[in-house]
Amino acid sequence: MKVGFVGLGIMGRPMAKNLLKAGHNVTCYNRGSGPRDELAEAGAAIAQTPKEAAAGMEAVITIVTDSPDVEHVILGPDGVIEGAASGTVVIDMSTISPEVTRRVGAALAERGIQMLDAPVSGGDAGAIAGTLSIMVGGEAAALEKARPLFEAMGQRIVHCGPLGAGQTVKLCNQVAITGTLLGVCEALLFAAKAGVDPNRMLEAVSAGAAGSWQMSNLGPKMVQRDFAPGFKVGLMRKDLRLAIESAGHMQAALPGLALVAQLFAAVDAAGLGEEGTQALLKALEGLNGVAVGG
Amino acid sequence: MKVGFVGLGIMGRPMAKNLLKAGHNVTCYNRGSGPRDELAEAGAAIAQTPKEAAAGMEAVITIVTDSPDVEHVILGPDGVIEGAASGTVVIDMSTISPEVTRRVGAALAERGIQMLDAPVSGGDAGAIAGTLSIMVGGEAAALEKARPLFEAMGQRIVHCGPLGAGQTVKLCNQVAITGTLLGVCEALLFAAKAGVDPNRMLEAVSAGAAGSWQMSNLGPKMVQRDFAPGFKVGLMRKDLRLAIESAGHMQAALPGLALVAQLFAAVDAAGLGEEGTQALLKALEGLNGVAVGG
Repeated sequence: MKVGFVGLGIMGRPMAKNLLKAGHNVTCYNRGSGPRDELAEAGAAIAQTPKEAAAGMEAVITIVTDSPDVEHVILGPDGVIEGAASGTVVIDMSTISPEVTRRVGAALAERGIQMLDAPVSGGDAGAIAGTLSIMVGGEAAALEKARPLFEAMGQRIVHCGPLGAGQTVKLCNQVAITGTLLGVCEALLFAAKAGVDPNRMLEAVSAGAAGSWQMSNLGPKMVQRDFAPGFKVGLMRKDLRLAIESAGHMQAALPGLALVAQLFAAVDAAGLGEEGTQALLKALEGLNGVAVGG
Repeated sequence: MKVGFVGLGIMGRPMAKNLLKAGHNVTCYNRGSGPRDELAEAGAAIAQTPKEAAAGMEAVITIVTDSPDVEHVILGPDGVIEGAASGTVVIDMSTISPEVTRRVGAALAERGIQMLDAPVSGGDAGAIAGTLSIMVGGEAAALEKARPLFEAMGQRIVHCGPLGAGQTVKLCNQVAITGTLLGVCEALLFAAKAGVDPNRMLEAVSAGAAGSWQMSNLGPKMVQRDFAPGFKVGLMRKDLRLAIESAGHMQAALPGLALVAQLFAAVDAAGLGEEGTQALLKALEGLNGVAVGG
């Protein structure tokens, strides 16, 4: 397919390369020039604006940081909306607000341009391996058009519902992750306060009803005091802000989400925004004046 | 081995039967007579008091409900302490307070009787299948004496540390479970409020970083509104009380634990103490005036 690709960050670069490997005809746009050169070497054409990346394309993928960035590259000056034609499918793979997604989709629909929201999980490792989970919102017919692109980038492609439903499910994913992570952190704190070896605790409980991806993957890192990011605190804070804003729009009361967001705010305030989400442990260590493992 | 067995509840009955199957010589005591008859049929001898169940035994297992029950059957009138000899290993497999465990152990030690705490996870299904996880606290030498008994009842036997460490790790297990469960419940609520099919949400996120035993096993039950107990709300409330008491002794601040305990208090107050722990969802549904799935 002829596809425009806007946003060559840590996720976008390997995703665009996987589209090239699968034989798609990719035209990239990125604000900074370094990633553009990297993708040009990999065989992509380079556009000077999002508008140019969208002109004459069957589909345009955007993957940028936050809601205002999506509004800017799609609806702003020289944006995707100026280049895309009626029948083009615009696929936003950023994690942003479901409400902003629907607003952008409505503006595109006025020009006959279809939109899908398709945020991903699986991190940069999943982006490189082409094994992302892709949570898709929008019309089923548009998803079918885009499916060859999704299959080049991901493994698990779930149609979650109408436009915005992909973003909603991605936020559900983050809500579940942070609750689970808080449980793991508090279990480690409990063991540390009691003087029990946290590795023994993890060994004893990981395989049973307390087990989780968070415990198996981040628990040992916390005990080894490895806070290198898989997913950064700063980005998780952005996603939790989106979840809390969306909960506000829906009048949903989620006390666990609120608590975890406050603890992550403390981690960020301590200057740890660039560490991995397992640094949530440090907020609890600060409350308790103990350190786990090390 | 010659082993006394005190407490023939939903867990104790199948555990005692697995000891018999493995060829051990088992003498049972239980307050009520129904389970005694069941075990007598399975080949156990029956004692009239915990003291009698302990007399002449190499090991005595207790598995009763709460801390005062353990104190009563071990240290009370006609208790295990009156029948056990120096060299007997007393193995408490109940889930109780680590502090009470150490107090009971100290009283036994004065008579030369060794104690292990060895709470389990895996539920009645694990007790029947002989696949329990057993979290052991106490002297390594006592654990080695008891190992043939543990191997008849469980699959994963972890030495967690000195006396009380098994209970500590069991409480860590419950802390991790409830945090994870809260994350799953709030993710379901978020999807429901947004009008997204909760089954699609679970399908999209279960295999990734948000995945957990709680999500895979209890998530679908919640959506189907199946609140039959694997593990009852009332028993989880007991365990969370033990965790909060123990955290109090240790001066540990665990805000997630406190929040989940309050939500379970609301579930119990609504008369749902006999339902499974997945009924935590109902507290959040009450807060939000919506129901998930159904």
